Amino acid sequence: MIIEGLCTTTNADGSMNIAPMGPIVDAEFSSILLRPFQSSTTFQNLAREKCGVFHVVDDVLQLARTALGEKPEHVETFSATKVSGKVLANACRWFEFEVTSINADQPRSEITTRVVHEGTLHNWSGFNRAKHAVIEATILCTRLHILPAEEIDAVWPFLASAVEKTGGPAEREAFEFVSNYLNEYRRSQQ
Amino acid sequence: MIIEGLCTTTNADGSMNIAPMGPIVDAEFSSILLRPFQSSTTFQNLAREKCGVFHVVDDVLQLARTALGEKPEHVETFSATKVSGKVLANACRWFEFEVTSINADQPRSEITTRVVHEGTLHNWSGFNRAKHAVIEATILCTRLHILPAEEIDAVWPFLASAVEKTGGPAEREAFEFVSNYLNEYRRSQQ
Repeated sequence: MIIEGLCTTTNADGSMNIAPMGPIVDAEFSSILLRPFQSSTTFQNLAREKCGVFHVVDDVLQLARTALGEKPEHVETFSATKVSGKVLANACRWFEFEVTSINADQPRSEITTRVVHEGTLHNWSGFNRAKHAVIEATILCTRLHILPAEEIDAVWPFLASAVEKTGGPAEREAFEFVSNYLNEYRRSQQ
Repeated sequence: MIIEGLCTTTNADGSMNIAPMGPIVDAEFSSILLRPFQSSTTFQNLAREKCGVFHVVDDVLQLARTALGEKPEHVETFSATKVSGKVLANACRWFEFEVTSINADQPRSEITTRVVHEGTLHNWSGFNRAKHAVIEATILCTRLHILPAEEIDAVWPFLASAVEKTGGPAEREAFEFVSNYLNEYRRSQQ
């Protein structure tokens, strides 16, 4: 199963990098298979530091902003327990991992890891259609350069409707952020 | 925010009724606003018993089956702590509630409740696109009699793709169940 979350790694200068990540996990999260592109900062950091932190999150505005390249102004963190790295304070759960092997035969690498520590910060809200609509809209927006416009237009009203019907203020703000991103991209292409 | 989950109530004969429910909740789940149709078993049970149990769940096959009218063969439960009712053993969290008021002016009622006890059974997996695709497909299938076929056809491939790319065996089984339901409905309409 692929879980959409956030991965923090340590940059060469000691600062934190935060990136969206969709690793393959088993039900117990005993191991996490990460698949960052070799061109990414996450790949370079993991190859050098051999450790990081994966987070199960439910804040879709943070996910959308991170995925669409808007640097977060301030992110609350605390130090990881068993690896050198940072934990996002607003995550539901976090998993500190060590890299056990790196397969870099393809542009999209496969990095196997072993979870050495985990913790829980807050409970999940439960299935909320609006949160997921924001995630789907965000993923579409990361692929605007390869997706036909019609493919996006076919599902966008469906996503917008789920946000309107089932979201709270945070989900509506997140969907507006993603919608603005789409509109700006389209204006730039005219 | 609307959370999609499962609600158990007690039937007049003492047996358990289980139904999908999308109540409006606040972030702390201190109160849960249920909106069952007056024609539903859940409404009748809540009007009579004045209590029930709402569950945050992550088992989408169980959600799909319950929503599409397939009676579950065997559901593991245990007795609620503070109300007369049953807790689903495979839920993530459960909330025992007492009814505080019933507004039955409209066919779709509004039932305000107060949570009197809650508990956690297992952790959420994290955002999985396949699980949500099953939920969206299930909701579409509960509305086949009012939705134009083209509206379903516009988003179905998008949902199927998310299941194929990000689901595990349980999510694939659930999507197959929902797809079969759709196909059988369409055959019956020919």
